Amino acid sequence: MTLRVLALTCTLKPSPAKSSSDLIARQLLDLFAERGATGEVVRVVDHDVRPGVEADMGDGDAWPDIRRKIAAADILLVATPTWVGHMSSVAQRVLERLDAELSETDDEGRPAMFGKVAVAAVVGNEDGAHKIIADLFQALDDIGFTVPAQGATYWNGEAMQGGDYLDLDETPKAVVSTNETVVRNAVHLANLLREHQYPAS
Amino acid sequence: MTLRVLALTCTLKPSPAKSSSDLIARQLLDLFAERGATGEVVRVVDHDVRPGVEADMGDGDAWPDIRRKIAAADILLVATPTWVGHMSSVAQRVLERLDAELSETDDEGRPAMFGKVAVAAVVGNEDGAHKIIADLFQALDDIGFTVPAQGATYWNGEAMQGGDYLDLDETPKAVVSTNETVVRNAVHLANLLREHQYPAS
Amino acid sequence: MTLRVLALTCTLKPSPAKSSSDLIARQLLDLFAERGATGEVVRVVDHDVRPGVEADMGDGDAWPDIRRKIAAADILLVATPTWVGHMSSVAQRVLERLDAELSETDDEGRPAMFGKVAVAAVVGNEDGAHKIIADLFQALDDIGFTVPAQGATYWNGEAMQGGDYLDLDETPKAVVSTNETVVRNAVHLANLLREHQYPAS
Amino acid sequence: MTLRVLALTCTLKPSPAKSSSDLIARQLLDLFAERGATGEVVRVVDHDVRPGVEADMGDGDAWPDIRRKIAAADILLVATPTWVGHMSSVAQRVLERLDAELSETDDEGRPAMFGKVAVAAVVGNEDGAHKIIADLFQALDDIGFTVPAQGATYWNGEAMQGGDYLDLDETPKAVVSTNETVVRNAVHLANLLREHQYPAS
Repeated sequence: MTLRVLALTCTLKPSPAKSSSDLIARQLLDLFAERGATGEVVRVVDHDVRPGVEADMGDGDAWPDIRRKIAAADILLVATPTWVGHMSSVAQRVLERLDAELSETDDEGRPAMFGKVAVAAVVGNEDGAHKIIADLFQALDDIGFTVPAQGATYWNGEAMQGGDYLDLDETPKAVVSTNETVVRNAVHLANLLREHQYPAS
Repeated sequence: MTLRVLALTCTLKPSPAKSSSDLIARQLLDLFAERGATGEVVRVVDHDVRPGVEADMGDGDAWPDIRRKIAAADILLVATPTWVGHMSSVAQRVLERLDAELSETDDEGRPAMFGKVAVAAVVGNEDGAHKIIADLFQALDDIGFTVPAQGATYWNGEAMQGGDYLDLDETPKAVVSTNETVVRNAVHLANLLREHQYPAS
Repeated sequence: MTLRVLALTCTLKPSPAKSSSDLIARQLLDLFAERGATGEVVRVVDHDVRPGVEADMGDGDAWPDIRRKIAAADILLVATPTWVGHMSSVAQRVLERLDAELSETDDEGRPAMFGKVAVAAVVGNEDGAHKIIADLFQALDDIGFTVPAQGATYWNGEAMQGGDYLDLDETPKAVVSTNETVVRNAVHLANLLREHQYPAS
Repeated sequence: MTLRVLALTCTLKPSPAKSSSDLIARQLLDLFAERGATGEVVRVVDHDVRPGVEADMGDGDAWPDIRRKIAAADILLVATPTWVGHMSSVAQRVLERLDAELSETDDEGRPAMFGKVAVAAVVGNEDGAHKIIADLFQALDDIGFTVPAQGATYWNGEAMQGGDYLDLDETPKAVVSTNETVVRNAVHLANLLREHQYPAS
């Protein structure tokens, strides 16, 4: 059975605007596909994800559809731009909505996200990736995801010079190599956890 | 001339739901009023603030109205709840929209926020205040605000016990004292800066 | 073959002073022992760990001995107090010294820490745990450790009230339960990874 | 009366090794001198600053000497490298030692650092500056320093490419301009606060 990957890209720009977060998410999905893990990208800002911390905020809330895709996935990739040195408000909203999963438990009392793997990709025209990765890992781990070794990739340019990932002539070799490590380790860990779920308490 | 204060409360809950962020913001506004600084609270989630990093994202965007209030204020108070250990997505959106002010300069080339003072209030049913204060101060300072000594107040309960600021029987003495310091120092600094704007480059 | 656990406690206080970080580390080690994972606590401040980012800073540097214990461990627990909202300088020094492991690779090119699991415990008389967990997970994951689902535990008291973990009459039930989850998940994941190392690139 | 500036550089490398933190601190001191604010650089790692959170940890502790220099300064500059995305362990130790100043109050009950201005400079061969600035501002503000508008400068290279500030052929124009803003605003604010100390409670 193949692994399923869901990439949530958290750009502030609705489709069809070009997005660096979207680009790196698609590059990672291509690498996942090479390893037999298929998936899709959801550009979160295209959907009306309401503020709140319940699984369904009612009345047109687009989160329940995204939530079903997360439930069906083995691996969650969160791809976010860097704004004022932080993850985007769209990425933070994803975390807030995922917070509801803490109280959703399976028949044996395990949080719903146990057994799923989370990885991160951060791009920016300014510094901030390590901090955003920290905030993502802490939140996603707390919600129940497992984080593989070297489970994050990122790009930003030289300080104060601007420049976007999608405007690079080619992806830097070091980023390509990091992308491959993220995917290789995520697939390995997701396969292990699918066959060997965490024990119940 | 009296000082103007604008409090942006960044709860995820639209009015008229009760909100701890809103409560602490109003407590601070009362203290500001005692020192002659008048202001108002804007509950940001009640307004359709669009994702983006321009001053006006067009087509129904509620930010330009809020932006005018910020322009008229001497002191900005950002009050936010804690979600997954971070500021709310609403607070991060405020920072993203304020980012546009970096390129708005006065006749002498100063960023539009130079001379204004920023303070923070963070509440939560879990840990996170110091980190959120850090993220707020870094972003607001970068955008051009000045941060007074001990310019933040906060409350959260004992670890893993839940509990909300608005459910406390009374405001703890230490929080009252911190609130007073925030207000006293913000007023002092805002008065100084109004009379003595930063020099142009 | 039993799992090995190494707990690095990062209190600022040398032995024999009582330490909350030390206490929670020992509580976790007891739980690990119940699951057949044996280990020891190293109180880092008792040893002369030199500033630097090499594996051995020479001339009396105490890190190489600690490093050998890490190499022999399947699970690393970092326990740190909270100072000014951050992990202690001793904990940050541990991360700086571990940074050297990124360039230590096995015969197949994998970083030396691949296959090891990292968990965190944070205590404080003030707020900061979620942020410290974020910073620890990001750094340890980047160095090559894997982070199990809900791989952190923590305690702090109500805001601005002081109070230390070691002065509690008893460990709060929620903390006991979180401690158990950390240990259960770490043991599960470490066993999986010992039998199924990440693939080489 | 001229302003006094103290720069604490928090490189991990003892003198006489070359240091990027030291370089940017000296560049800033030169700019301060142009505006009549004189000062000196203390490379903290050259001194035996003991772990702890008291003003004097006794027995050879080098902090009391540094503390006297801070007491005599109007402006404190903390310059730190980036390690694993965080401020150095030496910088965190400085914050821990400054924490003792919270309980040192003047005759009117004001914390000892009230009226002093703090600014930051961060360099690195990897990403992390915004987050470090956040952590520094939050801690220094809490201890009692005031943070001027745009009170931080930084440099890091393109993601994953390495490269150090001290190896640049010349300081990038954007960094020079930021350095000037930091100094101009710090001097302005320090002069204001020296003449108009915060009121007592």
